[in-house]
Amino acid sequence: MTTYYYTASSLDGFIATPDHSLDWLLSRSIDDAGPMHYSAFERTIGAIAMGASTYAWLLAHGGREKWPYERPVWVFTHRALEVPAGADVRAVEGDVVPVHREMTAAAEELGIWVMGGGELAGRFADAGLLDEVWVQFAPVTLGAGSPLLPRALELELVESARNVDFSCARYRVLSGRGAAGRLPG
Amino acid sequence: MTTYYYTASSLDGFIATPDHSLDWLLSRSIDDAGPMHYSAFERTIGAIAMGASTYAWLLAHGGREKWPYERPVWVFTHRALEVPAGADVRAVEGDVVPVHREMTAAAEELGIWVMGGGELAGRFADAGLLDEVWVQFAPVTLGAGSPLLPRALELELVESARNVDFSCARYRVLSGRGAAGRLPG
Repeated sequence: MTTYYYTASSLDGFIATPDHSLDWLLSRSIDDAGPMHYSAFERTIGAIAMGASTYAWLLAHGGREKWPYERPVWVFTHRALEVPAGADVRAVEGDVVPVHREMTAAAEELGIWVMGGGELAGRFADAGLLDEVWVQFAPVTLGAGSPLLPRALELELVESARNVDFSCARYRVLSGRGAAGRLPG
Repeated sequence: MTTYYYTASSLDGFIATPDHSLDWLLSRSIDDAGPMHYSAFERTIGAIAMGASTYAWLLAHGGREKWPYERPVWVFTHRALEVPAGADVRAVEGDVVPVHREMTAAAEELGIWVMGGGELAGRFADAGLLDEVWVQFAPVTLGAGSPLLPRALELELVESARNVDFSCARYRVLSGRGAAGRLPG
């Protein structure tokens, strides 16, 4: 079972602007049936983790009316959560290790997706629990915003592909703080 | 004539660590004859611009003993420069526009390479003088360091390729502060 951080990013390593906009991303073209697209990736996923900011963004952009995920979702937050009707959303805080164990059981042999932000993906990497990083680079620089992955990690390039406007790459996590000696795969 | 910013970067958008190390880059494998490699790019270049930090790094890493470039080099700096024997190096400061004009004349129909850092490339973009951005992404995150390109720019993906450990992408600069209305190409 594999734990993924799958995300889009600006070329200069930001996953959102300082005011949490994704307009720079959603205005770009991608082929749903093309390489490394989310729609194929998503079918391999059995459990989703995200931070409070990512969750708030989803609620504010259609998730409150129609929650987009059937898979169970764990939200790392220090506050009480508003949960839309029909959504399987669990509020958690603190150490990622027990949450990852719970997610692994729930995922039923499927993958675990750390959706973001970068700090949460970094906490999974710190614990040696992040196996792969997939990035879809949009053709834009932002100059500032939320960091892609604020850690020093050694990676291995597994796959690289163009999908219309996006340059996509998939990496295996080789090492990082806390992950020493654990070479996934 | 085209003005390029050609550089390597970590996956999270840093071109050097906070202590100016490039060990994370130079330890990775790349095929000199492979796609988008520096050796083919370099033959298209007639003039080079760089900032004082990039120049200091080159001097400290072999450039003092054997200067690596035959092309004329313009260094943006506020201090006097140490110039190695045999090196065609010119110290400049201030506005990039007159320097770009001088470089264009010297390049004799070849391209202009803004080698770095990111802030200098941003100043060329601000003036509408940056045509292309080429990035070789090394399989590593750094978490901190010198930013790739600290500007908000719209780009167009022209070419994408894998070269051994590197995921490479080439972009046309469509717009940015100062570049509005000037669509190169």
